[in-house]
Amino acid sequence: MRDAFHEELDAINHTLIEMCQLSGHAMEQATTALLTADLKLAEEVISDDDKIDNLYHDLDARILNLMARQQPVAGDLRALVTSIRMSADLERMGDMAHHVAKIARMRYPATAVPLELSLTLQEMGDAAKRIIDKTTHILQSHDTDAALQLEKDDDEMDKLHRQLFRILLDDSWPHGNETAIDMTLLGRYYERCADHAVVVAGNVYFLVTGEYINSNN
Amino acid sequence: MRDAFHEELDAINHTLIEMCQLSGHAMEQATTALLTADLKLAEEVISDDDKIDNLYHDLDARILNLMARQQPVAGDLRALVTSIRMSADLERMGDMAHHVAKIARMRYPATAVPLELSLTLQEMGDAAKRIIDKTTHILQSHDTDAALQLEKDDDEMDKLHRQLFRILLDDSWPHGNETAIDMTLLGRYYERCADHAVVVAGNVYFLVTGEYINSNN
Repeated sequence: MRDAFHEELDAINHTLIEMCQLSGHAMEQATTALLTADLKLAEEVISDDDKIDNLYHDLDARILNLMARQQPVAGDLRALVTSIRMSADLERMGDMAHHVAKIARMRYPATAVPLELSLTLQEMGDAAKRIIDKTTHILQSHDTDAALQLEKDDDEMDKLHRQLFRILLDDSWPHGNETAIDMTLLGRYYERCADHAVVVAGNVYFLVTGEYINSNN
Repeated sequence: MRDAFHEELDAINHTLIEMCQLSGHAMEQATTALLTADLKLAEEVISDDDKIDNLYHDLDARILNLMARQQPVAGDLRALVTSIRMSADLERMGDMAHHVAKIARMRYPATAVPLELSLTLQEMGDAAKRIIDKTTHILQSHDTDAALQLEKDDDEMDKLHRQLFRILLDDSWPHGNETAIDMTLLGRYYERCADHAVVVAGNVYFLVTGEYINSNN
Protein backbone atom coordinates (compact mmCIF):
# COMPACT_ATOMS: atom_id res chain seq x y z
CA MET A 1 0.00 0.00 0.00
CA ARG A 2 1.14 3.52 -0.83
CA ASP A 3 1.51 5.99 2.03
CA ALA A 4 -0.29 9.33 2.02
CA PHE A 5 2.66 11.19 0.52
CA HIS A 6 2.95 8.83 -2.44
CA GLU A 7 -0.78 8.88 -2.94
CA GLU A 8 -0.62 12.64 -3.26
CA LEU A 9 2.34 12.31 -5.62
CA ASP A 10 0.27 9.91 -7.74
CA ALA A 11 -2.58 12.42 -7.73
CA ILE A 12 -0.20 15.15 -8.93
CA ASN A 13 1.04 12.92 -11.73
CA HIS A 14 -2.57 12.15 -12.57
CA THR A 15 -3.26 15.88 -12.99
CA LEU A 16 -0.19 16.24 -15.23
CA ILE A 17 -1.55 13.39 -17.36
CA GLU A 18 -4.93 15.11 -17.47
CA MET A 19 -3.34 18.40 -18.57
CA CYS A 20 -1.45 16.53 -21.29
CA GLN A 21 -4.61 14.83 -22.51
CA LEU A 22 -6.52 18.12 -22.49
CA SER A 23 -3.82 19.89 -24.49
CA GLY A 24 -3.72 17.00 -26.99
CA HIS A 25 -7.48 17.17 -27.37
CA ALA A 26 -7.31 20.98 -27.72
CA MET A 27 -4.63 20.72 -30.40
CA GLU A 28 -6.64 18.14 -32.33
CA GLN A 29 -9.78 20.28 -32.18
CA ALA A 30 -7.88 23.44 -33.05
CA THR A 31 -6.50 21.74 -36.17
CA THR A 32 -9.99 20.63 -37.21
CA ALA A 33 -11.38 24.12 -36.55
CA LEU A 34 -8.54 25.58 -38.61
CA LEU A 35 -8.94 23.31 -41.61
CA THR A 36 -12.73 23.35 -41.73
CA ALA A 37 -13.31 26.99 -40.68
CA ASP A 38 -15.42 25.76 -37.77
CA LEU A 39 -16.01 28.88 -35.66
CA LYS A 40 -17.91 27.09 -32.91
CA LEU A 41 -15.12 24.58 -32.41
CA ALA A 42 -12.49 27.35 -32.44
CA GLU A 43 -14.40 29.25 -29.74
CA GLU A 44 -14.61 26.05 -27.72
CA VAL A 45 -10.83 25.52 -27.83
CA ILE A 46 -10.27 29.16 -26.86
CA SER A 47 -12.58 29.04 -23.85
CA ASP A 48 -11.46 25.53 -22.78
CA ASP A 49 -7.92 26.84 -22.34
CA ASP A 50 -9.08 28.26 -19.01
CA LYS A 51 -9.55 24.70 -17.75
CA ILE A 52 -5.88 23.92 -18.38
CA ASP A 53 -4.82 27.25 -16.81
CA ASN A 54 -6.90 26.50 -13.71
CA LEU A 55 -5.47 23.00 -13.37
CA TYR A 56 -2.04 24.57 -13.64
CA HIS A 57 -2.51 27.08 -10.82
CA ASP A 58 -4.27 24.56 -8.63
CA LEU A 59 -1.50 22.02 -9.19
CA ASP A 60 1.16 24.57 -8.26
CA ALA A 61 -0.51 25.15 -4.92
CA ARG A 62 -0.79 21.40 -4.28
CA ILE A 63 2.87 20.77 -5.12
CA LEU A 64 4.12 23.62 -2.91
CA ASN A 65 1.89 22.47 -0.11
CA LEU A 66 3.12 18.89 -0.34
CA MET A 67 6.75 20.03 -0.44
CA ALA A 68 6.28 22.17 2.64
CA ARG A 69 4.46 19.52 4.64
CA GLN A 70 6.45 16.45 3.70
CA GLN A 71 10.03 17.64 3.24
CA PRO A 72 10.76 15.06 0.55
CA VAL A 73 14.28 14.02 -0.41
CA ALA A 74 16.01 12.31 -3.34
CA GLY A 75 13.60 10.77 -5.86
CA ASP A 76 10.50 12.19 -4.18
CA LEU A 77 11.94 15.69 -4.26
CA ARG A 78 12.91 15.24 -7.89
CA ALA A 79 9.36 14.13 -8.67
CA LEU A 80 7.92 17.31 -7.18
CA VAL A 81 10.46 19.63 -8.77
CA THR A 82 10.01 18.11 -12.21
CA SER A 83 6.23 18.31 -11.74
CA ILE A 84 6.54 22.05 -11.10
CA ARG A 85 8.36 22.39 -14.40
CA MET A 86 6.26 20.02 -16.43
CA SER A 87 3.03 21.75 -15.45
CA ALA A 88 4.40 25.02 -16.92
CA ASP A 89 5.23 23.31 -20.22
CA LEU A 90 1.89 21.52 -20.37
CA GLU A 91 0.11 24.80 -19.75
CA ARG A 92 1.98 26.35 -22.68
CA MET A 93 1.09 23.40 -24.92
CA GLY A 94 -2.51 24.35 -24.27
CA ASP A 95 -1.64 27.97 -25.16
CA MET A 96 -0.39 26.83 -28.57
CA ALA A 97 -3.75 25.17 -29.33
CA HIS A 98 -5.40 28.40 -28.20
CA HIS A 99 -3.21 30.37 -30.65
CA VAL A 100 -4.09 28.02 -33.55
CA ALA A 101 -7.80 28.37 -32.74
CA LYS A 102 -7.47 32.17 -32.69
CA ILE A 103 -6.13 32.17 -36.25
CA ALA A 104 -9.09 29.99 -37.30
CA ARG A 105 -11.46 32.47 -35.63
CA MET A 106 -9.73 35.53 -37.07
CA ARG A 107 -10.08 34.31 -40.66
CA TYR A 108 -13.65 33.00 -40.31
CA PRO A 109 -15.80 32.64 -42.45
CA ALA A 110 -12.83 32.04 -44.75
CA THR A 111 -10.63 29.01 -44.20
CA ALA A 112 -7.28 30.28 -42.93
CA VAL A 113 -5.27 27.60 -44.73
CA PRO A 114 -5.07 27.54 -48.55
CA LEU A 115 -5.53 24.23 -50.33
CA GLU A 116 -1.82 23.82 -51.13
CA LEU A 117 -1.01 23.70 -47.43
CA SER A 118 -3.97 21.96 -45.88
CA LEU A 119 -2.33 18.53 -46.12
CA THR A 120 0.90 19.77 -44.52
CA LEU A 121 -1.00 21.51 -41.73
CA GLN A 122 -3.11 18.39 -41.17
CA GLU A 123 0.12 16.41 -40.93
CA MET A 124 1.58 18.91 -38.46
CA GLY A 125 -1.60 18.68 -36.41
CA ASP A 126 -1.42 14.86 -36.53
CA ALA A 127 2.28 14.91 -35.59
CA ALA A 128 1.55 17.23 -32.64
CA LYS A 129 -1.27 14.96 -31.48
CA ARG A 130 0.95 11.88 -31.81
CA ILE A 131 3.78 13.51 -29.85
CA ILE A 132 1.37 14.67 -27.14
CA ASP A 133 -0.19 11.19 -26.92
CA LYS A 134 3.27 9.68 -26.51
CA THR A 135 4.06 12.25 -23.84
CA THR A 136 0.87 11.20 -22.05
CA HIS A 137 2.10 7.60 -22.21
CA ILE A 138 5.54 8.66 -20.91
CA LEU A 139 3.91 10.47 -17.99
CA GLN A 140 1.86 7.34 -17.25
CA SER A 141 4.62 4.76 -17.63
CA HIS A 142 7.85 6.69 -16.87
CA ASP A 143 9.21 4.88 -19.93
CA THR A 144 12.70 6.40 -20.45
CA ASP A 145 13.24 4.67 -23.82
CA ALA A 146 10.07 6.31 -25.11
CA ALA A 147 11.30 9.65 -23.71
CA LEU A 148 14.56 9.31 -25.65
CA GLN A 149 12.64 8.20 -28.72
CA LEU A 150 10.42 11.30 -28.65
CA GLU A 151 13.23 13.45 -30.01
CA LYS A 152 12.87 11.45 -33.26
CA ASP A 153 9.19 12.19 -33.50
CA ASP A 154 10.11 15.80 -33.05
CA ASP A 155 12.46 15.47 -36.05
CA GLU A 156 9.38 14.49 -38.05
CA MET A 157 7.73 17.74 -36.95
CA ASP A 158 10.83 19.71 -37.96
CA LYS A 159 10.70 18.02 -41.37
CA LEU A 160 7.08 19.09 -41.81
CA HIS A 161 8.03 22.58 -40.69
CA ARG A 162 10.67 22.75 -43.42
CA GLN A 163 8.20 21.35 -45.95
CA LEU A 164 5.77 24.13 -45.01
CA PHE A 165 8.46 26.71 -45.75
CA ARG A 166 9.35 25.03 -49.04
CA ILE A 167 5.76 25.41 -50.22
CA LEU A 168 5.55 29.00 -48.95
CA LEU A 169 8.78 29.85 -50.74
CA ASP A 170 7.84 28.29 -54.05
CA ASP A 171 7.82 30.88 -56.82
CA SER A 172 4.37 29.79 -57.82
CA TRP A 173 2.90 30.59 -54.35
CA PRO A 174 -0.24 32.48 -55.40
CA HIS A 175 -1.37 33.78 -52.00
CA GLY A 176 -0.38 37.06 -50.46
CA ASN A 177 1.82 37.83 -47.54
CA GLU A 178 -1.03 37.76 -45.06
CA THR A 179 -1.52 34.08 -45.70
CA ALA A 180 2.24 33.50 -45.68
CA ILE A 181 2.41 35.11 -42.24
CA ASP A 182 -0.52 33.09 -40.89
CA MET A 183 1.14 29.93 -42.15
CA THR A 184 4.51 30.85 -40.65
CA LEU A 185 2.90 31.48 -37.27
CA LEU A 186 0.89 28.27 -37.44
CA GLY A 187 4.03 26.32 -38.27
CA ARG A 188 5.74 27.85 -35.29
CA TYR A 189 2.80 27.04 -32.94
CA TYR A 190 2.82 23.36 -33.90
CA GLU A 191 6.57 23.19 -33.66
CA ARG A 192 6.64 24.88 -30.23
CA CYS A 193 3.87 22.63 -28.97
CA ALA A 194 5.97 19.60 -29.93
CA ASP A 195 9.04 21.23 -28.35
CA HIS A 196 7.23 21.69 -25.04
CA ALA A 197 6.12 18.03 -25.18
CA VAL A 198 9.75 16.99 -25.73
CA VAL A 199 10.76 19.11 -22.72
CA VAL A 200 8.11 17.32 -20.62
CA ALA A 201 9.44 13.94 -21.75
CA GLY A 202 12.97 15.14 -20.93
CA ASN A 203 11.78 15.98 -17.42
CA VAL A 204 10.39 12.46 -17.00
CA TYR A 205 13.77 11.12 -18.14
CA PHE A 206 15.53 13.33 -15.58
CA LEU A 207 13.07 12.31 -12.89
CA VAL A 208 13.82 8.61 -13.42
CA THR A 209 17.55 8.73 -14.17
CA GLY A 210 18.83 11.98 -12.59
CA GLU A 211 20.50 12.71 -15.96
CA TYR A 212 19.62 15.25 -18.65
CA ILE A 213 18.90 14.29 -22.23
CA ASN A 214 21.32 16.37 -24.26
CA SER A 215 19.25 18.53 -26.54
CA ASN A 216 19.38 22.01 -27.92
CA ASN A 217 15.89 23.30 -28.23
CA MET B 1 24.42 38.03 9.26
CA ARG B 2 22.86 35.57 6.86
CA ASP B 3 22.99 31.87 7.69
CA ALA B 4 24.45 29.32 5.29
CA PHE B 5 21.09 28.47 3.75
CA HIS B 6 20.28 32.09 2.93
CA GLU B 7 23.75 32.64 1.60
CA GLU B 8 23.22 29.78 -0.82
CA LEU B 9 19.81 31.20 -1.72
CA ASP B 10 21.50 34.54 -2.44
CA ALA B 11 24.05 32.75 -4.60
CA ILE B 12 21.25 31.07 -6.56
CA ASN B 13 19.55 34.40 -7.11
CA HIS B 14 22.89 35.81 -8.18
CA THR B 15 23.15 33.10 -10.86
CA LEU B 16 19.61 33.88 -12.06
CA ILE B 17 20.64 37.54 -12.37
CA GLU B 18 23.75 36.50 -14.28
CA MET B 19 21.67 34.37 -16.67
CA CYS B 20 19.33 37.31 -17.21
CA GLN B 21 22.23 39.65 -17.93
CA LEU B 22 23.82 37.14 -20.31
CA SER B 23 20.58 36.67 -22.22
CA GLY B 24 20.10 40.45 -22.44
CA HIS B 25 23.63 40.84 -23.75
CA ALA B 26 23.07 37.96 -26.21
CA MET B 27 19.85 39.54 -27.48
CA GLU B 28 21.55 42.91 -27.95
CA GLN B 29 24.45 41.36 -29.84
CA ALA B 30 22.14 39.16 -31.92
CA THR B 31 20.19 42.27 -32.99
CA THR B 32 23.40 44.04 -33.99
CA ALA B 33 24.62 40.95 -35.86
CA LEU B 34 21.26 40.77 -37.62
CA LEU B 35 21.09 44.38 -38.70
CA THR B 36 24.74 44.74 -39.73
CA ALA B 37 25.25 41.23 -41.20
CA ASP B 38 28.10 40.68 -38.76
CA LEU B 39 28.93 36.98 -39.11
CA LYS B 40 31.57 36.93 -36.38
CA LEU B 41 29.19 38.44 -33.84
CA ALA B 42 26.42 36.03 -34.87
CA GLU B 43 28.77 33.06 -34.36
CA GLU B 44 29.71 34.46 -30.96
CA VAL B 45 26.09 34.66 -29.83
CA ILE B 46 25.48 31.11 -31.08
CA SER B 47 28.47 29.64 -29.22
CA ASP B 48 27.92 31.74 -26.07
CA ASP B 49 24.50 30.14 -25.66
CA ASP B 50 26.32 27.12 -24.20
CA LYS B 51 27.35 29.30 -21.24
CA ILE B 52 23.72 30.00 -20.39
CA ASP B 53 22.82 26.32 -20.87
CA ASN B 54 25.64 25.27 -18.54
CA LEU B 55 24.62 27.76 -15.88
CA TYR B 56 21.11 26.39 -16.19
CA HIS B 57 22.06 22.76 -15.61
CA ASP B 58 24.50 23.63 -12.85
CA LEU B 59 21.88 25.78 -11.13
CA ASP B 60 19.33 22.97 -11.26
CA ALA B 61 21.71 20.68 -9.43
CA ARG B 62 22.43 23.33 -6.79
CA ILE B 63 18.73 24.03 -6.19
CA LEU B 64 17.84 20.35 -5.87
CA ASN B 65 20.76 19.81 -3.56
CA LEU B 66 19.80 22.72 -1.34
CA MET B 67 16.18 21.57 -1.21
CA ALA B 68 17.20 18.08 -0.21
CA ARG B 69 19.68 19.18 2.45
CA GLN B 70 17.76 22.03 4.02
CA GLN B 71 14.11 21.08 3.82
CA PRO B 72 12.95 24.67 3.46
CA VAL B 73 9.39 25.78 4.18
CA ALA B 74 7.14 28.74 3.35
CA GLY B 75 8.99 31.67 1.74
CA ASP B 76 12.27 29.79 1.43
CA LEU B 77 10.60 26.91 -0.34
CA ARG B 78 8.80 29.32 -2.65
CA ALA B 79 12.14 30.96 -3.45
CA LEU B 80 13.64 27.64 -4.52
CA VAL B 81 10.62 26.50 -6.49
CA THR B 82 10.32 29.78 -8.36
CA SER B 83 14.07 29.64 -9.04
CA ILE B 84 13.65 26.24 -10.67
CA ARG B 85 11.06 27.74 -12.98
CA MET B 86 12.79 31.04 -13.65
CA SER B 87 15.99 29.32 -14.70
CA ALA B 88 14.06 27.44 -17.42
CA ASP B 89 12.58 30.69 -18.76
CA LEU B 90 15.93 32.49 -18.63
CA GLU B 91 17.53 29.62 -20.52
CA ARG B 92 14.89 29.94 -23.23
CA MET B 93 15.43 33.71 -23.45
CA GLY B 94 19.00 32.84 -24.38
CA ASP B 95 17.67 30.39 -26.98
CA MET B 96 15.71 33.21 -28.63
CA ALA B 97 18.91 35.26 -29.06
CA HIS B 98 20.52 32.12 -30.48
CA HIS B 99 17.66 31.79 -33.01
CA VAL B 100 17.98 35.47 -34.07
CA ALA B 101 21.74 35.00 -34.56
CA LYS B 102 21.12 31.90 -36.66
CA ILE B 103 18.97 33.88 -39.10
CA ALA B 104 21.76 36.50 -39.34
CA ARG B 105 24.25 33.70 -40.08
CA MET B 106 22.00 31.94 -42.58
CA ARG B 107 21.57 35.07 -44.72
CA TYR B 108 25.20 36.21 -44.53
CA PRO B 109 26.78 37.92 -46.49
CA ALA B 110 23.40 39.53 -47.21
CA THR B 111 21.65 41.45 -44.46
CA ALA B 112 18.61 39.41 -43.42
CA VAL B 113 16.45 42.48 -42.75
CA PRO B 114 15.33 44.74 -45.60
CA LEU B 115 15.60 48.49 -45.14
CA GLU B 116 11.85 48.98 -44.63
CA LEU B 117 11.99 46.85 -41.50
CA SER B 118 15.36 47.58 -40.00
CA LEU B 119 13.99 50.35 -37.76
CA THR B 120 11.15 48.15 -36.48
CA LEU B 121 13.53 45.26 -35.82
CA GLN B 122 15.94 47.60 -34.05
CA GLU B 123 13.04 48.82 -31.91
CA MET B 124 12.04 45.24 -31.14
CA GLY B 125 15.64 44.48 -30.18
CA ASP B 126 15.73 47.60 -27.98
CA ALA B 127 12.39 46.71 -26.39
CA ALA B 128 13.62 43.16 -25.67
CA LYS B 129 16.80 44.53 -24.12
CA ARG B 130 14.83 47.04 -22.02
CA ILE B 131 12.43 44.35 -20.78
CA ILE B 132 15.33 42.01 -19.97
CA ASP B 133 17.17 44.82 -18.12
CA LYS B 134 14.05 45.52 -16.08
CA THR B 135 13.73 41.81 -15.34
CA THR B 136 17.33 41.86 -14.11
CA HIS B 137 16.38 44.76 -11.83
CA ILE B 138 13.30 42.86 -10.61
CA LEU B 139 15.45 39.81 -9.81
CA GLN B 140 17.85 42.06 -7.90
CA SER B 141 15.31 44.15 -6.02
CA HIS B 142 12.22 41.89 -5.78
CA ASP B 143 10.30 45.03 -6.74
CA THR B 144 6.69 43.83 -7.18
CA ASP B 145 5.48 47.14 -8.65
CA ALA B 146 8.09 46.85 -11.37
CA ALA B 147 6.98 43.24 -11.94
CA LEU B 148 3.38 44.39 -12.45
CA GLN B 149 4.58 47.24 -14.64
CA LEU B 150 6.49 44.89 -16.94
CA GLU B 151 3.27 43.74 -18.58
CA LYS B 152 2.98 47.27 -19.99
CA ASP B 153 6.45 47.11 -21.51
CA ASP B 154 5.36 43.87 -23.07
CA ASP B 155 2.39 45.69 -24.62
CA GLU B 156 4.95 47.92 -26.34
CA MET B 157 6.55 44.79 -27.80
CA ASP B 158 3.16 43.55 -28.99
CA LYS B 159 2.59 46.93 -30.66
CA LEU B 160 5.90 46.61 -32.50
CA HIS B 161 4.98 43.07 -33.46
CA ARG B 162 1.74 44.32 -35.04
CA GLN B 163 3.64 47.14 -36.76
CA LEU B 164 5.98 44.54 -38.25
CA PHE B 165 3.01 42.68 -39.69
CA ARG B 166 1.48 45.89 -41.05
CA ILE B 167 4.65 46.58 -43.03
CA LEU B 168 4.88 42.97 -44.21
CA LEU B 169 1.26 43.07 -45.34
CA ASP B 170 1.48 46.35 -47.19
CA ASP B 171 0.63 45.90 -50.87
CA SER B 172 3.81 47.65 -51.82
CA TRP B 173 6.01 45.09 -49.99
CA PRO B 174 8.62 44.42 -52.65
CA HIS B 175 10.43 41.46 -51.06
CA GLY B 176 9.60 37.83 -51.56
CA ASN B 177 8.10 35.32 -49.23
CA GLU B 178 11.47 34.15 -47.96
CA THR B 179 12.07 37.53 -46.39
CA ALA B 180 8.49 37.68 -45.13
CA ILE B 181 9.03 34.33 -43.38
CA ASP B 182 12.35 35.41 -41.85
CA MET B 183 10.69 38.57 -40.55
CA THR B 184 7.71 36.66 -39.15
CA LEU B 185 10.04 34.29 -37.30
CA LEU B 186 12.19 37.15 -36.03
CA GLY B 187 9.12 38.96 -34.75
CA ARG B 188 8.07 35.84 -32.93
CA TYR B 189 11.54 35.35 -31.36
CA TYR B 190 11.59 38.87 -29.94
CA GLU B 191 8.03 38.56 -28.75
CA ARG B 192 8.67 35.20 -27.08
CA CYS B 193 11.83 36.48 -25.45
CA ALA B 194 9.81 39.31 -23.90
CA ASP B 195 7.09 36.82 -22.89
CA HIS B 196 9.61 34.67 -21.05
CA ALA B 197 10.93 37.78 -19.26
CA VAL B 198 7.37 38.64 -18.20
CA VAL B 199 6.96 35.08 -16.89
CA VAL B 200 10.18 35.51 -14.85
CA ALA B 201 8.89 38.79 -13.42
CA GLY B 202 5.59 37.06 -12.62
CA ASN B 203 7.51 34.43 -10.70
CA VAL B 204 9.24 37.12 -8.63
CA TYR B 205 5.81 38.59 -7.91
CA PHE B 206 4.56 35.17 -6.81
CA LEU B 207 7.68 34.61 -4.73
CA VAL B 208 7.13 37.83 -2.79
CA THR B 209 3.33 37.87 -2.53
CA GLY B 210 2.21 34.23 -2.89
CA GLU B 211 -0.27 35.47 -5.53
CA TYR B 212 -0.31 35.09 -9.31
CA ILE B 213 -0.38 38.02 -11.69
CA ASN B 214 -3.40 37.38 -13.87
CA SER B 215 -2.14 37.12 -17.40
CA ASN B 216 -2.91 35.12 -20.48
CA ASN B 217 0.28 34.52 -22.36
